[in-house]
Amino acid sequence: MKILGIDSSGLTASVAVVEDDIVIGEYNINFRKTHSQTLLPMLDELSGMISLDAATIDGIAVSEGPGSFTGLRIGSAMVKGLARAWEKPIIPVPTVDALAYNMYGSSDLICPIMDARRNQTYTGLYEFVPEGDGYKMNVLLDRRAVDLGAIMAEVNASGRRTVFLGDGVPVFAEQLREEVRVEYSFAPAFMNRQRAAALAVLAASYMREGRTCTAAEHAPVYLRMSQAERERMESGQ
Amino acid sequence: MKILGIDSSGLTASVAVVEDDIVIGEYNINFRKTHSQTLLPMLDELSGMISLDAATIDGIAVSEGPGSFTGLRIGSAMVKGLARAWEKPIIPVPTVDALAYNMYGSSDLICPIMDARRNQTYTGLYEFVPEGDGYKMNVLLDRRAVDLGAIMAEVNASGRRTVFLGDGVPVFAEQLREEVRVEYSFAPAFMNRQRAAALAVLAASYMREGRTCTAAEHAPVYLRMSQAERERMESGQ
Repeated sequence: MKILGIDSSGLTASVAVVEDDIVIGEYNINFRKTHSQTLLPMLDELSGMISLDAATIDGIAVSEGPGSFTGLRIGSAMVKGLARAWEKPIIPVPTVDALAYNMYGSSDLICPIMDARRNQTYTGLYEFVPEGDGYKMNVLLDRRAVDLGAIMAEVNASGRRTVFLGDGVPVFAEQLREEVRVEYSFAPAFMNRQRAAALAVLAASYMREGRTCTAAEHAPVYLRMSQAERERMESGQ
Repeated sequence: MKILGIDSSGLTASVAVVEDDIVIGEYNINFRKTHSQTLLPMLDELSGMISLDAATIDGIAVSEGPGSFTGLRIGSAMVKGLARAWEKPIIPVPTVDALAYNMYGSSDLICPIMDARRNQTYTGLYEFVPEGDGYKMNVLLDRRAVDLGAIMAEVNASGRRTVFLGDGVPVFAEQLREEVRVEYSFAPAFMNRQRAAALAVLAASYMREGRTCTAAEHAPVYLRMSQAERERMESGQ
């Protein structure tokens, strides 16, 4: 099974092509440029390097959210265009699930923490359990937008050694160290941000379960109202 | 600390720039092209995308071997050139150590298996143990060129659940399944091959310990004689 993966839900722009047990190519950039400047040129560059024939792709995986509203829209718009043009299914993957998947095989509790601004995090809780000749990821607590205290209460209640990752870690590090009551670690640089190669591998398992949609059906999942929507509601208009 | 990482020890061509807890950029290709065609253009492309200023780099990490003789020579030659021109230290990292580092945080025994041809593997044994707010990798069995039976005897003697990774896994999968007596798993696509981003993070810890060398000092570590050397020796010349 060959999957094109795209993630622009955070600061990292990430594209990858994974076929079965091999990452044929991946390109990840976490730099000042915006995704509208980087994502399509990166896909073009990667496609050229691996002589990508769109006809050979089985599905297009995208980080559907939560995350940066603009980032999610750029990723979704691009994936919708590609899926429509190439007549391929889209495999939407929750951003925090894909982020947690970076820690594949860890025996720790996995807690992705994305900075959701306004003192909130996008988060969830995950674990890996042996299955066959690999590991299966269990979702213990679904993706959600909550303040750090709420997720730390869940982590502490688990009593389990926990690994934290995501762009919320540097933001909340001080508060996290104060509130955490279990053994913990922070994921290293090569595992702590969105990575389309991990997304694509997780998406392949979704696709085998039939969890796909069409270009017309796909929409990002923001989990919260945008600033514009919030301000309109608060002003009573 | 900012590290440029380069790995061309196997089929994957991989370049990455890592600064402290962030992968600024990485580019990995596992395709039919040879490293002499891909590695330098990939570095050029990546450098442009992240506006890389060579003066800001602290060290250049390279997968020093074992691995493909030609691949190692291309990587070493390129790194020597860059290190000389930019006046930066080289941080040589054993290929199998960097490969094992992909499984950061796993509680399994880590067993990289590279296909060394002539029915041998390049391998070693590793484990992660908690240290501070992260994990430290212990080398239990140094890199070596042995047949699969020899390393499987060590794995079985450990009694520990083991994860196998590397390009030797598909080659030796059948024999491995027959000989393994412990619980085991195979690493997924996004963790099972050389990755310069993981190499660079491991190299940063080496650099802090002063484990660097100059361009003049650096040489690949093959662990075995080349085919030409072997044939010359066997012919008694």
